[in-house]
This record gives sequence, C-alpha cells and structure tokens, in this order.
Amino acid sequence: MNNETFEASALNRRSFLKTSSLALGAAGLAAATSAEAAPWFSPGRNLITKGEVILFQGDSITDAGRSRDREKTSAPNNQPGLGNGYAWLAAAELLVGRPDDELKIFNRGISGHKVFQLAERWQADCLDFKPDVLSILIGVNDIWHSLDPKLNYKGTVEIYERDYHALVVRTKSALPKMKLVVCEPFVLRCGAVNDKWFPEFDNYRAAANRVAEKHHATFVPFQAMFDLAVKYAPPEHWAGDGVHPSPAGAALMAHFWANAVCGKR
Amino acid sequence: MNNETFEASALNRRSFLKTSSLALGAAGLAAATSAEAAPWFSPGRNLITKGEVILFQGDSITDAGRSRDREKTSAPNNQPGLGNGYAWLAAAELLVGRPDDELKIFNRGISGHKVFQLAERWQADCLDFKPDVLSILIGVNDIWHSLDPKLNYKGTVEIYERDYHALVVRTKSALPKMKLVVCEPFVLRCGAVNDKWFPEFDNYRAAANRVAEKHHATFVPFQAMFDLAVKYAPPEHWAGDGVHPSPAGAALMAHFWANAVCGKR
Repeated sequence: MNNETFEASALNRRSFLKTSSLALGAAGLAAATSAEAAPWFSPGRNLITKGEVILFQGDSITDAGRSRDREKTSAPNNQPGLGNGYAWLAAAELLVGRPDDELKIFNRGISGHKVFQLAERWQADCLDFKPDVLSILIGVNDIWHSLDPKLNYKGTVEIYERDYHALVVRTKSALPKMKLVVCEPFVLRCGAVNDKWFPEFDNYRAAANRVAEKHHATFVPFQAMFDLAVKYAPPEHWAGDGVHPSPAGAALMAHFWANAVCGKR
Repeated sequence: MNNETFEASALNRRSFLKTSSLALGAAGLAAATSAEAAPWFSPGRNLITKGEVILFQGDSITDAGRSRDREKTSAPNNQPGLGNGYAWLAAAELLVGRPDDELKIFNRGISGHKVFQLAERWQADCLDFKPDVLSILIGVNDIWHSLDPKLNYKGTVEIYERDYHALVVRTKSALPKMKLVVCEPFVLRCGAVNDKWFPEFDNYRAAANRVAEKHHATFVPFQAMFDLAVKYAPPEHWAGDGVHPSPAGAALMAHFWANAVCGKR
C-alpha cells in the first residue's frame, strides 16, 4: 500500500479498515482476512508479557486529570497517577485481568501537548522509564492549535509527521526492544470540531498511520471505532466537545486499546 | 465441588476463582487450568453469534437510568434505551466491535427490583423478547431491603435462591435454546455497605453461583473482579455508595462481562 492509496480511501470505511489491519504489523497481517471487518480484534496477539513496564504518552486525552503529586506518580498502577481516561481504564483492565503478571503501568500524558512538546520532555518522561511497551496518542493539538489564529501556532501536517517520526527513531535508538503502540488521533463531529478541521484532520490521521507502518507499530484505529460508535449514540455522548472523551468514550477506547494490543491473554 | 466447599472457601481468592472457572460451563472447564488465575478470560469462548437477540435483566445496576420512552426502548441498540451502565458499555463494545453481526441488544433492568419482581414482569420483559442470550444481574436488593427494618421486606437467601432457580426453569421451559449468563451480585466495602451485610451477602453470591452451575450458565464473577480492583483504587472509586458502580466501575464490568461471554471473536 502506498500513501496515495491510503489517503484516497481514508473516508471509505472498508478500505480504511483494511489499511488499519495492515498497520497492525505481523500478527495483524496474519489475521488480515478475518480481521478485515474489525481490525482491532486480533486473536492470538499479545504484545504484553509478564513483568513489563507500560507507558502511556500523549496530550489531555491521555492525561485525563492525572495527579502531579510526586509520590503518586512515581509508583506504577496508581489510579490518581493514571488519571481518569482511557489510559487508566485500560490499565485497570490489564491489572485486574492479569493479576499475576506484575505489570507496571505509568501515564505521562500532558494536556495541550503537541509532538514537539513530547520531544522536549522525552528523556525524563519516556526514555528514563525504559518502557517495554510505549503507547502514544498525539496529534489533535497539532492541528487544533494551528486552526486558532490567537495561538499563533504555525504547525503543519508535514511538521507533525517529521517530528513524530524523529521521536520514534530517537526512542528506538535508546530502547531497541521497545514495543510501540501508535494510537490514531480522532475527533467527533460536534463541539469545537467544525468543518474547518477537514479534510486536513484526515491527513494527520494518515500521517500517524504512516509512522505506525514505518516502525512496525501496533496501530489502534480510534477514528474508525468512533465512526462506528456514532451509529449507536450521538457524537456528544462519546466526546462533548468533539475532542475529549466522555467516560463512555474513554471506556470504549480502553476496550479497543486492550483488544488491539493484547486481543488474547 | 459441593456447596459446603464453595461456602467454606468463599473468601479465599484462589479457591473462589477455581469455583468461578467451574461455573463457566463446558468451555470454562476445558480452559480451567490456564484460566485459574483469571477465569473471566476464556479464549475460544464465544456465546454470541450473528443476528442474535441479547437481553440484559436486573435491578438499578443494569437499569442505570435507561429511558422509559416507548419508542426508544422498543428498538434495540439504542443508547437511551440501554442506559448508562455496564449493560450499555458492554453493548457498545459488542456493536462497535462486531459491526457485521447484526446483534439486537435490549435492557429491561428496573431499579430496586428483587428476583420476585423480575418474575412478576417476566412474560413481557423477557419471554416475549425470545432472547438468544439472557444476562441476569440480581440480588443486591434481595439482601439490602431485608436489612432495612423500615422496608419490612422479609426475604431470605433461601427465598432468593428458590425464586431465582424457578425463574430460570420457567425461562428454559419457554425458551429451551436460550443461553444464560448469571452475573455475580457484588458490593464494595464503602457507602451504604457496612458490616451488617456480612457474612450473609457471601451466601447470596454463593446462591447465584449455584443457580449458574445448576443450569450450566456462564458465570461472570464481578465480586472477584472488584476484590482485585480495590488493590488499584479505593472502593469509592468503583462504587460511591458501595452498590451502584461509577463510570469506571461500569467500564470494568462491561469489559469483564464481554470477556466472560465472548472472550474471543
């Protein structure tokens, strides 16, 4: 698949899901036929093994009100330190579902951040953790802040992709065995999300997908998930302002994250 | 396993989880060894197949503020009709995760109900739906209302078990192919839940487990789940009053319900 093909079919559900299947990496490829309808279910896939360190990174969607208290955030598996969003709910699924696996889960998402801001704090907030599994959800501010003239942010999708790629190269250089999970940026069509976002937002999603592919990462297709979810409840039910998930949105994300990353125990 | 063994070991985690594994039925039995640590993960199990009708039944935990509007509740897969609790979140996981399966999901939980009140409305609120999969979570009011002298409710665990068994016999007689899911009643040790509830509450849990075993139902061990969950966040995080799950509690329940019922697509 080349990039043109991806971009041309970005709004076509069937093709999009195929693309996502491919981005699941080797296990996803093996299961591509059966997974075509719902690529996040990848039976037999289990990225996480006993004793591993899992780090969630990103912006406010990952942050989700996590504590900044040093004591609470220095220890793993701590609800205040993990926040109240998808990262905490996914952590809870893993910790309660695999009680003997001694997983150590951290969250270092920070509200408002874009890729270049992850890079600025990457040594302390990622590399020093030596994560076995690193999950990144970044991109919505990279476009959002560029749409608001008051913020005077001059980012483009090219800068986003270049910086994201460089961040992963740097991480793999420091941690060659790290397993990467790239989460698709997503929006719901409500609240702060208006027509100004499109079609440029689709290009940011495609860029994240290319980063995942280039680095053989597991891709979690959150936009595809929410595009299906709005068939059953309105966009506002999943994210009131179109960007920040409600508890129900976060629960659905946690479930699909866990299924994409370790569809089977 | 006999009932004495179960009751004697009800507070012993390892034995309890073994018990729960056994209650998973044939598929659970086959997977008993590997599933011992976390019986709700039953890879290969998939109770739900294409086009089926799934009905959630129970009390306020299932109800969770669902709409009583006739239009909204007569159609399946409708968020207002499914409420805001574990039933809706589990439905969302299934509907979004299996978009081609044409599942039809309903909720008929009613706040405050005990087993005998399910029986009173069973024809209209269960049998007439002809569910392929019926999931029941009932029991917390059966004990709670008996603890409050003002309510003058004289129920006992024997009445609960007798009525629950009779309800399942009646359902199986009308719908011999119906697949049954029995959810374990649970409480968190906070809010309205004090020492007066114990050890009697454990007997209600054991009774629900016996109903599941007797009828070869899938058993969802919510109490075992929450007993592990409180290692990572306090009881109040999961259920402020000890009975009604928070959004995080409902999300964890939905995830474990889906894993127990269809651990693999």
